Amino acid sequence: MSESARPAPLSGVRVIEISAFVAAPLGGMTLAQLGADVIRIDPIGGNIDYTRWPVTDAGRSIYWASLNKGKRSVTLDLKSPLGQAIATELIASAGILITNLPARGWLSYDNLVRHRPDLIMLRLSGTYDGGAAVDYTVNAASGFPSITGFDERPVNHALPAWDVTAGLYIANGVLAAELERRASGAGQEVNVALSDVMLATVGNLGYIAEVQTNGSTRGPLGNGLYGAYGQSFRTSDDREIMVAVISNRHWKSLGEATGLTEKLAMIGSLLDVDLSTEGGRYHARDAIDAVLRPWFATQSAADAATRLATAGVLQGTFQTFEELVRTDPQCSTANPMMTEIDQPGVGRVLAPRIPLTFDGSPTADAQAAPILGANTDDVLRSVLGTTMEQLADLRARGILAA
Amino acid sequence: MSESARPAPLSGVRVIEISAFVAAPLGGMTLAQLGADVIRIDPIGGNIDYTRWPVTDAGRSIYWASLNKGKRSVTLDLKSPLGQAIATELIASAGILITNLPARGWLSYDNLVRHRPDLIMLRLSGTYDGGAAVDYTVNAASGFPSITGFDERPVNHALPAWDVTAGLYIANGVLAAELERRASGAGQEVNVALSDVMLATVGNLGYIAEVQTNGSTRGPLGNGLYGAYGQSFRTSDDREIMVAVISNRHWKSLGEATGLTEKLAMIGSLLDVDLSTEGGRYHARDAIDAVLRPWFATQSAADAATRLATAGVLQGTFQTFEELVRTDPQCSTANPMMTEIDQPGVGRVLAPRIPLTFDGSPTADAQAAPILGANTDDVLRSVLGTTMEQLADLRARGILAA
Repeated sequence: MSESARPAPLSGVRVIEISAFVAAPLGGMTLAQLGADVIRIDPIGGNIDYTRWPVTDAGRSIYWASLNKGKRSVTLDLKSPLGQAIATELIASAGILITNLPARGWLSYDNLVRHRPDLIMLRLSGTYDGGAAVDYTVNAASGFPSITGFDERPVNHALPAWDVTAGLYIANGVLAAELERRASGAGQEVNVALSDVMLATVGNLGYIAEVQTNGSTRGPLGNGLYGAYGQSFRTSDDREIMVAVISNRHWKSLGEATGLTEKLAMIGSLLDVDLSTEGGRYHARDAIDAVLRPWFATQSAADAATRLATAGVLQGTFQTFEELVRTDPQCSTANPMMTEIDQPGVGRVLAPRIPLTFDGSPTADAQAAPILGANTDDVLRSVLGTTMEQLADLRARGILAA
Repeated sequence: MSESARPAPLSGVRVIEISAFVAAPLGGMTLAQLGADVIRIDPIGGNIDYTRWPVTDAGRSIYWASLNKGKRSVTLDLKSPLGQAIATELIASAGILITNLPARGWLSYDNLVRHRPDLIMLRLSGTYDGGAAVDYTVNAASGFPSITGFDERPVNHALPAWDVTAGLYIANGVLAAELERRASGAGQEVNVALSDVMLATVGNLGYIAEVQTNGSTRGPLGNGLYGAYGQSFRTSDDREIMVAVISNRHWKSLGEATGLTEKLAMIGSLLDVDLSTEGGRYHARDAIDAVLRPWFATQSAADAATRLATAGVLQGTFQTFEELVRTDPQCSTANPMMTEIDQPGVGRVLAPRIPLTFDGSPTADAQAAPILGANTDDVLRSVLGTTMEQLADLRARGILAA
């Protein structure tokens, strides 16, 4: 990245975040990673997510540290009118607020907009009609658990996919509203419901129209692909490797890599399917599995991966988080996205910056999460002009942490 | 939405998309849903994703229709220099390009920027170092399959979570670069690798730091929560219901809803854990499961859901896609996010707009996907000023579809 590079894309943008858990903090962190000054305001002692697992032996939340990288942290007694007034001033000064707290009373858009007429407020809620929802409950309704795994028993994802997706929609919402504000001069409230994020994604991936048009959808396919050919295979060293064929070129490569081109071709005549189409390969998947399994059983995962990759087959060996962190080169500073940071209370760890490389206005390397409340005095002094005497008075009154 | 509402946030922004599959099309569709004029350019006959499953009985791709809603469609012979020149002119005119095709030759940033000096080009690739990767192979490396499901066997997600996440990062990348361009006047190339999207998410959720700090992470927990209390339960009518406790209030509510407050409290003494902490409840999860299971076995899912919801417990009954579409009110036009559209070749179906509600500059209701190539003449005439005679000539030469 050259010295003449422009500042990061969101340089000069300030965002206040009053949040907990995954989605809203990820939304704020995404903006911080794009160069915004994101100030997370928490109650003194931290919000409900401050000690969430995983934690270190000393009880420090690795979860919190990972979802709040590169932000500044302010803590206030948010139950007191004076603490609320200070938070309101910070929001009014920044002009952008992200929250997943109930937006009532002082935190309502109607109140805040009186202090900042062009305020952008991005609010995450559970369901569109005011109900409570979290990733686990939204996921149960989504339909995906019913087709995950090897049988009819519903299986939850381990990745909190709806929270992650919602966090990225939040960032998109803020950026779109900011673009619009620069043109119109006006702010607005932007609402997103976690259950709508799920439902929109289900619709965008075709499941709603599929049920309406075809009457039903697929059942669980284990690790197999739907509508194309793909499967996971056990190798001679008891590992499991995923293979995906999403083009005729891949199909040809799979035959070459395994030396099974002729046997695979026989399946077409055997089952009267056209193996030059994705649908044909999907129909013939059990027979294809049967032909390929013995080959994988004779190969180590490393050998299979090399042969498949050399021939141009899409493949990936399943690994644990431990293997990803300890042995996969992409999870090291060899990957320009990754930086070693000193995370207070956690230690020296690898952390990603945003997975977007801006060639003209590069973003910063990964930054540690703040110590809770560490930026309170600085922010109040620099943003609100609070004096040392006033800080001492606020501290004495319990509005700021002792 | 009042008649005096401002136009949608990205009104006036034009984007060219040259793409296939999920991530890049979802990135473009997200911008279209925010109000941008998104023109997808495909080879004549469609790109590799044009017939992807699920399909209708007549072979029309429901997948393609769902991921390209609200775009315009142009088809060109992209292998011919003249087709490439027309695409280049469209890109130069729009000033923003999204692609997941190999950005070589005419489609390279270096070439395109000569035609549009302030071009923003968002390019999705497989891995950061140029390797091939798709959702299935990236997922195998992520670690998540190793903790999904009920045993050590890796289980793939059915939701293409990395593709969805990448699509939303793409939209964020375009919006951030556009904001920066409005300030600096300069464009840039923005790169995102699918494997980096996975790795960044793994890091953001704390798994990398957890392994580095604690030496390991959790194993598979079935449908149980990690670090808190949550579980799925079988009900008397053979359904399965998910319960999540992420606060002390929820824990109290769970006791009240089931009438098991006293028995649950006994577990604290039984196992010497503090049930007023998330970690304590997580440690005691098996005993909590054992106390709760008989209660659920006597309740229908509907009764259990009512009792739990009334008491304030987070809960959700697992349902299939068919149940979601046919019986869940949120998946109907009662939900303001959903619209019935007439999708050419598919029929009348429910479709979502973007799951962000902009109160000041509302976005449009869901729009159908285009018929492949349907906007070619219009776009060439209105954007490039191509004449009817020139269109006829291009058609005669096979640059446009006959």
